[in-house]
Amino acid sequence: MTYCLAMRLDEGLLFMSDTRTNAGLDNVSTYRKLHVFRPGDDRLFVLQSAGNLATTHEVLDQITHGLAGSGDSLATVDHLYEAALYVGELSAGVANRHRGSLGDNATATFILGGQVRGEPADILLVYPEGNYIRASDDRPFLQIGEAKYGKAWLDLAVHAGAGLRTAAKIALSSMVSTALANLSVGPPYDLGFYERDSYELLHARIEGDSPYLDRLSDAWNAQMMAAVDLLPEVEPGDITVFAPDHEVGA
Amino acid sequence: MTYCLAMRLDEGLLFMSDTRTNAGLDNVSTYRKLHVFRPGDDRLFVLQSAGNLATTHEVLDQITHGLAGSGDSLATVDHLYEAALYVGELSAGVANRHRGSLGDNATATFILGGQVRGEPADILLVYPEGNYIRASDDRPFLQIGEAKYGKAWLDLAVHAGAGLRTAAKIALSSMVSTALANLSVGPPYDLGFYERDSYELLHARIEGDSPYLDRLSDAWNAQMMAAVDLLPEVEPGDITVFAPDHEVGA
Repeated sequence: MTYCLAMRLDEGLLFMSDTRTNAGLDNVSTYRKLHVFRPGDDRLFVLQSAGNLATTHEVLDQITHGLAGSGDSLATVDHLYEAALYVGELSAGVANRHRGSLGDNATATFILGGQVRGEPADILLVYPEGNYIRASDDRPFLQIGEAKYGKAWLDLAVHAGAGLRTAAKIALSSMVSTALANLSVGPPYDLGFYERDSYELLHARIEGDSPYLDRLSDAWNAQMMAAVDLLPEVEPGDITVFAPDHEVGA
Repeated sequence: MTYCLAMRLDEGLLFMSDTRTNAGLDNVSTYRKLHVFRPGDDRLFVLQSAGNLATTHEVLDQITHGLAGSGDSLATVDHLYEAALYVGELSAGVANRHRGSLGDNATATFILGGQVRGEPADILLVYPEGNYIRASDDRPFLQIGEAKYGKAWLDLAVHAGAGLRTAAKIALSSMVSTALANLSVGPPYDLGFYERDSYELLHARIEGDSPYLDRLSDAWNAQMMAAVDLLPEVEPGDITVFAPDHEVGA
């Protein structure tokens, strides 16, 4: 599986992806799932992928091939949503070609983020069917892959006013919690920092043996254990008491 | 869906279940999923259910019917694992009878906890196929239903040395996080407190409008927001920087 997430903040965009892939528990590997395309000074695209690895590779190759040609490509689109539809069309096409042998297992889901000059930076989720949605205004983040474990924390912590550095630590703690709970998600972790109107991405990696991840885990665990003490206890007045469903002699 | 969890602590056992059931988003109802059987002074059983509601009802009726008869029942088993196998056999039998019309949708999963005199209190997870596992020694809890959202927190917080009251607030915060993230889980919440060797359960309910849940959410949210500030930021030395996959003029 995979866990990728992206956030849309006032300051810009933040992207984070794990790198673990697996075809069975005994066939685990490391692949990058965060890809960066900068086909002009007026545009930058980040593509994060979950789902069939072969499909995502074929889509990435087609995008790159498209940029070398003269037809429609990420270099020619006028809007971010057109880029999402372009990626969606490629993705649905690849999955359809392999459907005969793979069925629904050939599909992939993408987060496409970035900016085309003339419109705001944004993040979009591209479904396997080729259509897309944007992140909501109230919860300005998107997730693909193993999204459930880290979602409650994002719901609480992510808001558009957070800075990129704060967003990075929120994203990393969501990622580390997910990796603890699910073997199919693991380091190294790829991060993308995009400041709006910059058309350049700081694309960085944190390795699994990074002292940062230890510092983060220690701080997170300390904070969680402190929570156990600080949360209120249930008092007798808070509850209604029931009789058993079936009791001896009743 | 459903979210039920149980913990095995030095002091005894803690059970918690939500009460929401749904057959589609427009057919939501409230049913108890925590059931208590005390068929003798030497035994107490708590049964929590997830999966097909009709199957769980049929299993509960068969258990109750069995207690009124003279054959095998929860009143006759000598060990908790025998009770798990008994429930598993009933459950697999009911699911099989409805398989023709419902396929795999007829199955149910149970947590069976409690104590039979002569052996320690314990919790067991009964699979739809009728077999069972116990909770592990290292992570002495079990979950059924929508388990992913609240698991990371339990992994950190639950240990056998926690008292029942501490366990209750850990369980409730896992439950509240899950309900926030997933519409199919909701209040009221049923709690069971079992002190070992007591053969009696304190079975209590917390309503959705309980001031306790407000106090818990406020304390939880405050602790989480404090975590955002306390977690360490990513420093330049923590990361390796990449070039884009495709860059203008490259």
